Amino acid sequence: MIHEVSINWLEGVAFRSEADGHSITIDAPFEAGGQNKGIRPKMLILASLGGCTGVDVVLILQKMKVKFTGIRIVVEGKLTEHHPKVYETIVVKYFFSGEDLDLAKLQKAIDLSQDKYCGVTAMLRNSVKISNQIIIE
Amino acid sequence: MIHEVSINWLEGVAFRSEADGHSITIDAPFEAGGQNKGIRPKMLILASLGGCTGVDVVLILQKMKVKFTGIRIVVEGKLTEHHPKVYETIVVKYFFSGEDLDLAKLQKAIDLSQDKYCGVTAMLRNSVKISNQIIIE
Repeated sequence: MIHEVSINWLEGVAFRSEADGHSITIDAPFEAGGQNKGIRPKMLILASLGGCTGVDVVLILQKMKVKFTGIRIVVEGKLTEHHPKVYETIVVKYFFSGEDLDLAKLQKAIDLSQDKYCGVTAMLRNSVKISNQIIIE
Repeated sequence: MIHEVSINWLEGVAFRSEADGHSITIDAPFEAGGQNKGIRPKMLILASLGGCTGVDVVLILQKMKVKFTGIRIVVEGKLTEHHPKVYETIVVKYFFSGEDLDLAKLQKAIDLSQDKYCGVTAMLRNSVKISNQIIIE
């Protein structure tokens, strides 16, 4: 299966990304020479990782019959200082809300995502140290 | 420097990503159990790669005094069939428009991005075979 994304230059260093009819504006912040019209490109890696593992965790918890009312995932990437600037570490913080949540089941869902299902983690972990935290709110 | 992205569950397998005030809706397509309300998470990797190298190429060509009227970057990722599903190859196609474009300079800008500046390429290339093509339109 082929996934295709088209990125079209707008002006300055801003681009419009199109994928399956879904549009995203990409730009650099002012301090990096852009006009902050959209997300900076590298941060899409963090959104990708959070979304990928988020979808997994929702599906796994549903199979486990775990009832939750909210999931928020905060993905923090620590950049290196020299070119090419990469995330040397990424911390994925999973915040769950709901009544009587079973920590062991939440941990199992995260482990299954990070170790088995999440392709984004699999593509990054040869280059980036990725760690996880669970917080029940 | 820390980059932070927050991903909040909406419903089904849809999430809203927030980063520096820029919002992206993430979802799975219908055939993968979603409602296609937003981009699928893994494709954000392709958008990230295209945006990252696109910003580099614009800045490098400006420094080289190369005048272009358009840049479109098509990023194609070929998925593996088994979990975790990853892109085993990614092809980055750079389409340039403008008068009397110097192919050698365009190639040099792309090489500088892919070999030296683009952190997204640097994070992926230990796992994914990435190749490039130039097309002058």
